[in-house]
Amino acid sequence: MTEHAQGQTAGNAGTDVLRRLAQVLAARRGADPASSYVAALYAKGQDAILKKIGEEAAETVIAAKNGDPAALVHEIADLWFHTLVLLSQQDLGPDDVLAELARRFGRSGLEEKAARRGG
Amino acid sequence: MTEHAQGQTAGNAGTDVLRRLAQVLAARRGADPASSYVAALYAKGQDAILKKIGEEAAETVIAAKNGDPAALVHEIADLWFHTLVLLSQQDLGPDDVLAELARRFGRSGLEEKAARRGG
Amino acid sequence: MTEHAQGQTAGNAGTDVLRRLAQVLAARRGADPASSYVAALYAKGQDAILKKIGEEAAETVIAAKNGDPAALVHEIADLWFHTLVLLSQQDLGPDDVLAELARRFGRSGLEEKAARRGG
Amino acid sequence: MTEHAQGQTAGNAGTDVLRRLAQVLAARRGADPASSYVAALYAKGQDAILKKIGEEAAETVIAAKNGDPAALVHEIADLWFHTLVLLSQQDLGPDDVLAELARRFGRSGLEEKAARRGG
Repeated sequence: MTEHAQGQTAGNAGTDVLRRLAQVLAARRGADPASSYVAALYAKGQDAILKKIGEEAAETVIAAKNGDPAALVHEIADLWFHTLVLLSQQDLGPDDVLAELARRFGRSGLEEKAARRGG
Repeated sequence: MTEHAQGQTAGNAGTDVLRRLAQVLAARRGADPASSYVAALYAKGQDAILKKIGEEAAETVIAAKNGDPAALVHEIADLWFHTLVLLSQQDLGPDDVLAELARRFGRSGLEEKAARRGG
Repeated sequence: MTEHAQGQTAGNAGTDVLRRLAQVLAARRGADPASSYVAALYAKGQDAILKKIGEEAAETVIAAKNGDPAALVHEIADLWFHTLVLLSQQDLGPDDVLAELARRFGRSGLEEKAARRGG
Repeated sequence: MTEHAQGQTAGNAGTDVLRRLAQVLAARRGADPASSYVAALYAKGQDAILKKIGEEAAETVIAAKNGDPAALVHEIADLWFHTLVLLSQQDLGPDDVLAELARRFGRSGLEEKAARRGG
């Protein structure tokens, strides 16, 4: 099936980017703050990362309200990116988040979530 | 290579959860609001989804400040989950975000980002 | 001067609501959680208040984008209200915020702010 | 009563700062973007103001979690300040928000709010 083959390709690429991104982020944690945006962000400390998460969440809301799909994808990528920076800073990574999503999303995952939320 | 084989497995699992989640979300867009949390959220409309994104971003910040790794993973999973709901509502999906991250993250991806941000 | 008289009246009313609100909030800090929304919020603890601030900020952004003046005023009132709850929880109050605004807003207050921000 | 006299003074000063701030903001809406922080913010447009509100809300949460009273007052002042900028941009002002708070805070104001929220 072509679709499956494409899925595999895109899937690996997708996973690759999250994992490779995590590797690069880990490598930059101790780097010279002047060497990159991420190294500068780590040097500023956790509060600077958290501030960016608040800012990118607001920009996601704004892009959605503007009805601009490209801007929405851009802002959600920014938001995911800065959550990856935060995870890395805490010695965590995308696999932890994906495992948590997988855990909820078993046979009855979303229903379980619904039940939890409804409480 | 064992590492590669593990990467493949974990990679597919990771991609699977994002993609399967996207499929389930798409299926629930037209479902009875009483049938699940997600169907109810779609029925409430985009503003309800955006409100959740603001809320989950705040909870991510709070969990990080509390220094609780499990809570942090939980809240970031909630945040990613609601961005996936928003993407689905706009006929977009995780592959769009992963492609955007991959686009930035070429050989010089993060440096390019640093340059952009530094402007 | 009529304008001045009106100003005084509205001014006192405005101050009254912030200060009376602060007094009521202080009184409810130790009250039975079942007795009011605010008492319940205090009983849940600071993180619950902070979550509301994130939520109300998102709702303010949404209302502004919706171009609905009444909703905007409503959401900003909700946002200010929850910052007053937070201030009260920390033994602070609206006068502290007004004094900080007044401090910045002297003869050259906003320019000073501009200088600070521009740094 | 000395306390009352002080309250009056602080009260008028408090109202003054909100109202004078609103007047200055209104005056800067059409000013040269290079002339002040606020004029530059207006020139960038509403989305720039909304982004600041998301950012200042995150900084309020961070300051609260850091247990730093001076920083908390500072960030809440920033948050109120940018909501005043937003209100002014919409031809609204602090009196609208104070009136909304006063409306809720009548004889049974906060209880009414509790009821509304509980729904």
